[in-house]
Amino acid sequence: MSNAKLPIDKTDNYTSETAQARRAFVTEKTGVDFQHLAQYSFEPSVLKGNIENFAGVAQVPIGFAGPLKVLGEYAQGNFYVPLATTEGTLVASYNRGMKLCREAGGITTTVMDDAMQRAPLFVFKNARYSKAFGEWVTAHFDELKTKAEETTSAGKLLDIEQYTVGKLHWLRFNYSTGDAAGQNMVTKATHRACHWVFDQNIEGLEHFTMAANMDTDKKHSHLNTLQTRGKRVVAEITLPNELLQGIMHVSSEALFKQRQYSNAGSMLSNAISNGSHFANGITAIFIATGQDVANVAESSAGIVYVELKPNGDYYFSITIPSLIVATYGGGTGLATQRECLQMMDCFGAGKVNKLAEIVAATVLCGELSLGAAIVANEWVSSHEQYGRNR
Amino acid sequence: MSNAKLPIDKTDNYTSETAQARRAFVTEKTGVDFQHLAQYSFEPSVLKGNIENFAGVAQVPIGFAGPLKVLGEYAQGNFYVPLATTEGTLVASYNRGMKLCREAGGITTTVMDDAMQRAPLFVFKNARYSKAFGEWVTAHFDELKTKAEETTSAGKLLDIEQYTVGKLHWLRFNYSTGDAAGQNMVTKATHRACHWVFDQNIEGLEHFTMAANMDTDKKHSHLNTLQTRGKRVVAEITLPNELLQGIMHVSSEALFKQRQYSNAGSMLSNAISNGSHFANGITAIFIATGQDVANVAESSAGIVYVELKPNGDYYFSITIPSLIVATYGGGTGLATQRECLQMMDCFGAGKVNKLAEIVAATVLCGELSLGAAIVANEWVSSHEQYGRNR
Amino acid sequence: MSNAKLPIDKTDNYTSETAQARRAFVTEKTGVDFQHLAQYSFEPSVLKGNIENFAGVAQVPIGFAGPLKVLGEYAQGNFYVPLATTEGTLVASYNRGMKLCREAGGITTTVMDDAMQRAPLFVFKNARYSKAFGEWVTAHFDELKTKAEETTSAGKLLDIEQYTVGKLHWLRFNYSTGDAAGQNMVTKATHRACHWVFDQNIEGLEHFTMAANMDTDKKHSHLNTLQTRGKRVVAEITLPNELLQGIMHVSSEALFKQRQYSNAGSMLSNAISNGSHFANGITAIFIATGQDVANVAESSAGIVYVELKPNGDYYFSITIPSLIVATYGGGTGLATQRECLQMMDCFGAGKVNKLAEIVAATVLCGELSLGAAIVANEWVSSHEQYGRNR
Amino acid sequence: MSNAKLPIDKTDNYTSETAQARRAFVTEKTGVDFQHLAQYSFEPSVLKGNIENFAGVAQVPIGFAGPLKVLGEYAQGNFYVPLATTEGTLVASYNRGMKLCREAGGITTTVMDDAMQRAPLFVFKNARYSKAFGEWVTAHFDELKTKAEETTSAGKLLDIEQYTVGKLHWLRFNYSTGDAAGQNMVTKATHRACHWVFDQNIEGLEHFTMAANMDTDKKHSHLNTLQTRGKRVVAEITLPNELLQGIMHVSSEALFKQRQYSNAGSMLSNAISNGSHFANGITAIFIATGQDVANVAESSAGIVYVELKPNGDYYFSITIPSLIVATYGGGTGLATQRECLQMMDCFGAGKVNKLAEIVAATVLCGELSLGAAIVANEWVSSHEQYGRNR
Repeated sequence: MSNAKLPIDKTDNYTSETAQARRAFVTEKTGVDFQHLAQYSFEPSVLKGNIENFAGVAQVPIGFAGPLKVLGEYAQGNFYVPLATTEGTLVASYNRGMKLCREAGGITTTVMDDAMQRAPLFVFKNARYSKAFGEWVTAHFDELKTKAEETTSAGKLLDIEQYTVGKLHWLRFNYSTGDAAGQNMVTKATHRACHWVFDQNIEGLEHFTMAANMDTDKKHSHLNTLQTRGKRVVAEITLPNELLQGIMHVSSEALFKQRQYSNAGSMLSNAISNGSHFANGITAIFIATGQDVANVAESSAGIVYVELKPNGDYYFSITIPSLIVATYGGGTGLATQRECLQMMDCFGAGKVNKLAEIVAATVLCGELSLGAAIVANEWVSSHEQYGRNR
Repeated sequence: MSNAKLPIDKTDNYTSETAQARRAFVTEKTGVDFQHLAQYSFEPSVLKGNIENFAGVAQVPIGFAGPLKVLGEYAQGNFYVPLATTEGTLVASYNRGMKLCREAGGITTTVMDDAMQRAPLFVFKNARYSKAFGEWVTAHFDELKTKAEETTSAGKLLDIEQYTVGKLHWLRFNYSTGDAAGQNMVTKATHRACHWVFDQNIEGLEHFTMAANMDTDKKHSHLNTLQTRGKRVVAEITLPNELLQGIMHVSSEALFKQRQYSNAGSMLSNAISNGSHFANGITAIFIATGQDVANVAESSAGIVYVELKPNGDYYFSITIPSLIVATYGGGTGLATQRECLQMMDCFGAGKVNKLAEIVAATVLCGELSLGAAIVANEWVSSHEQYGRNR
Repeated sequence: MSNAKLPIDKTDNYTSETAQARRAFVTEKTGVDFQHLAQYSFEPSVLKGNIENFAGVAQVPIGFAGPLKVLGEYAQGNFYVPLATTEGTLVASYNRGMKLCREAGGITTTVMDDAMQRAPLFVFKNARYSKAFGEWVTAHFDELKTKAEETTSAGKLLDIEQYTVGKLHWLRFNYSTGDAAGQNMVTKATHRACHWVFDQNIEGLEHFTMAANMDTDKKHSHLNTLQTRGKRVVAEITLPNELLQGIMHVSSEALFKQRQYSNAGSMLSNAISNGSHFANGITAIFIATGQDVANVAESSAGIVYVELKPNGDYYFSITIPSLIVATYGGGTGLATQRECLQMMDCFGAGKVNKLAEIVAATVLCGELSLGAAIVANEWVSSHEQYGRNR
Repeated sequence: MSNAKLPIDKTDNYTSETAQARRAFVTEKTGVDFQHLAQYSFEPSVLKGNIENFAGVAQVPIGFAGPLKVLGEYAQGNFYVPLATTEGTLVASYNRGMKLCREAGGITTTVMDDAMQRAPLFVFKNARYSKAFGEWVTAHFDELKTKAEETTSAGKLLDIEQYTVGKLHWLRFNYSTGDAAGQNMVTKATHRACHWVFDQNIEGLEHFTMAANMDTDKKHSHLNTLQTRGKRVVAEITLPNELLQGIMHVSSEALFKQRQYSNAGSMLSNAISNGSHFANGITAIFIATGQDVANVAESSAGIVYVELKPNGDYYFSITIPSLIVATYGGGTGLATQRECLQMMDCFGAGKVNKLAEIVAATVLCGELSLGAAIVANEWVSSHEQYGRNR
């Protein structure tokens, strides 16, 4: 294959013609005829800011699940949830969990915290200067906040965490970012604040860099689990044992026992979640609603905490410490993505916590459904014959 | 909103009519008119096994990047890579990294290992029985292999790792799975093997479950980083300093210094990757090519290892220990997904290692591009004025 | 203070005279009169191989606890356990746990695995060579084993794990090492085996180093938790609820509830143990019996796994995955250390697993005792008044 | 062996007679004659609060190393360091590192942070109440501080971190604790503050417990690495290449290269330190100076950060994020322990940061010494013949 570069017309880049030219170019090189990639239903000019070298669309099947009954602070009522996936049983499984939770009266959701980060690194001549800088930053928080917020109307600087190794000194700026995910907003704001720092004659400063893996963007870190990135959301429910047996064919006791095993397994494997598959529901909603799907890397971490009540009820909760969602900006305004947000009344300003709660409630449903499936299948048909063997 | 259930016609579930009925139902409940969701270009009957409650498609913009020059064992030559995303600059950034690597002669890729897992848990009366069971399993590996492989022509049982906590005993079955990702294949095979175990009068066995977080499916675990899940792939390149300066406007020395900071940061944050954004490229290819996108949770972990050579050359490598890809099954055969695999000649039998290498090479390009951007911007315009301040 | 060097008489280094000279030298520099350091009861010549610049002894108080009733494979019966510590309540707390477990019939202990490591690193020109080397090592295991074992009669090479990052290739040699901890034994053996490798014309080899943090000596790693370093030991017991209430004044249900909280806490804090204080008992035995106390760094990691039985019984287990102990070599033969090993019949050849089991049983007692204390104190006297407030 | 209980005379527990009675009792049961255990040089009555069931002492050999040249904020000048160990080469190796650092002009040390924790857990009916409680705590910090500090003159409440999972809500009280390690002080203070909380009619509170693995006492956690437990100390030095070659027989370049490998290894093994053996020096000083040696579990974690300067100088730093030390209380006042503190002028009030700096400087010396030994030995004699083979 030749190494010819793709044709990019910089002056008129977001047209069906340039998209067609790119496809034709690759067809010529590879022989592949793109019959389906070209089947989009929107005007490509809307894509400015969303993609480069636009050549068509992936058509990812969407299934509807629900209604999902949410008793949130922001999301209240029944929701139909769009799930974009190519993995069979995923929609059915979440749907089954939604039925269970609906019959149990709905899922309580709470957004516990909200913070988007940028963590520039200041390198000093030695740790002594770093220590002095730390005190200086604490003393000048108000000025840093003023500077940072000059660049944005939506972003608010909440606080600055400080972390050190040797002579390296990270400032982890935490912002609330309104209805946007906010990664770009916080970069700009933090950059402005750092500019101002440079003007202050900080003693012993040797080097500066805007990022060095303490944010941590596009990858899970235990720091994020502790300190939140995006929204920290909890979804909870208390399920009567009879309901579990009626709908899921498992007892609360059997689910609780399996939970003990799963906890031990996740500690031993050092998993970033003791849950089953947070990632499935999160990814499917993210694709459908125009989220930055790569943030599944951070958003899929979490903790399941449960209790078996004396009366047999099963308290079940999931905590997502780094759920990164937006209802504004990014891909949220694109054609199908906007429709998917709208069907949950989650498009645009003032909706981001609502979306976060719906995602968390959906994740909870998937955990219950898969967990019950594993328990119900255990021993499978062999159970009986195994029983005889003991 | 009412809590009415979605209409599901089980006898004829994958038709445009049922999809339309589902949309109409939700339109009635929510008032949202789905103009774009309905715009798919394939016959819905192909979706059996991929989704339930089908109601339309997400249209995710695809940009082409490349050519990507790969010197792999399986992928050899120049490839145009389809990236589905809604995040601006992503395609441009990977494209820039591809240009750099092309000019440097191409990226060496190696699939180091290949294993898909299912890790059933055997619970014993006490640890003494668990220990005896471990010896028994080692002694009966051949029979377990025979049993497991009865259920599959593609899957081969490679080995069985054993892990214990107290009286809990996990067997982690490792399989090669041909061109499929293989999660279902290995479940079936392992289930069959465990069945056979139940017939062998294992002493002291109290309980069994097919899964308890030692696989670990749909979530990162350090176990997977150590022992591989899916493909373990390395991509490497050695870049002359002049090339870096010419194309990326940074020196190898500056990149290397930033790498030291990023390593320290990732250790301090306890990140599952010391890289910048493996997740971006992986997610974009996964959506475009019909992979199980939720596996970004596992596949986005990784390690960057670099060397600054005495002559100024920069050796750069990325290792993805848990890359889960398929060229067969799942969503790979759907309309746009298949076209995207075909444009890299990665559709169907015998292509999965090729795809794994292309993904790894793409990830490497993205790391170089973003890393260089961070370095080139540092101090930004403030650099000069900051210089005066010291 | 001057920077004068300590007087070291290399020809006669292990005498009371040289020790006295060193003390006098420091007395002169600092004015401190060493009345107690000098009070040792053995002949300093025995210290050759144990310490350099010998100047006296630390007198660490020892308390006896017990009897500890162990139902091990190696340790069977009642043992009095020497605990060297300066922390009040430690001995009393372990003693209380030993009483509980005695009355419950004793503690079952099992050494699940046994392996001491050295993990040399081979660096290649690229990952392709590393992959080929991996296959070569697998094919030549018998020769590597022969070479390694030439250097030791006690050490046996069990297997070689392989781990890779980029072009870096670690071989993790696992040995059984008899009654010694074995760190030096395995270094020598591995070094010999690597020597032989160098003679085999390995293609693409660029660099070699005997260690690069994949053993991992003197520090905890999750690798060690998974794959064992030293002994992997389990201690287990099933405690009737009445016994818990009679001796510990807590119910099994309350302990179990606290365990759920502690599990959640350890996941959230990312602790290397979900236990309370494995380190206390391990450290106290290590100091008393001449172990390498710095190995507390590795040996203190572990996992607690419990079950609340339907009849109210409490199954409690602890797993120590990296317990590094010796009954031969190191400090085990010194004056007080030997007496402490002897009082448990754990001195010398053939005793190491017995000691490992006693340590694990002791740890279990301490976990139960502290755990119960936390639960019994909760709400403390405020409980009543707090109860009124709700 | 019988299961007879040890004789404990509660009215006169700390006498040579009761110690003798305990030894005699065990001698009778085991036949072991304790000739050495009895050889202590102090009056046992001083041990009240340090140990129970006192029966004698462990004699742990002490070697002196030094002088160690420290350029700290608190430790300034040359120090002779007492190291209690039974591991041959340990003292010699640290001594060698001290020589190197002395000749390089001394080690800069900085205590970056100081905080001792107790982290009680408040369990609520659901997460919504937990969220409200979090806001309440923030609003009532001053009162909580007042209440906590009523119990202690030395302890000062610095701040309260908050962490949540589901409906679980941990308050992590951070205190400065003067010259004591402070674990008991902070327990008492926190208990008092929590008492006061109970009186405030907190809505939805279901359960309370003083500890659930978020402190995290006697075990490493990543939380502690991030947020400090005890002292966070940095030791740094810049070493000329010629000095390294002269004293250690290695180049700065070779050390730096090895550091890259060790970093990669520690990421891959998920080690809690990328250093070589922090634990060795820390443990040896801890035993000698009457520290709570079990805190090696927490104190041995850390991060090495280095730079190779353009002129060949080697910047080397170690950071210990959880160094738990005291110069007052615990075992610090015992006979030999006090002498060892005094020889560094670290006994009693106002000395704890000085001791922390000396420990950190010592750790740095050990890292350099072992690191250089590994590098100098690599290839060993085989180097030459290996070189011929390539």
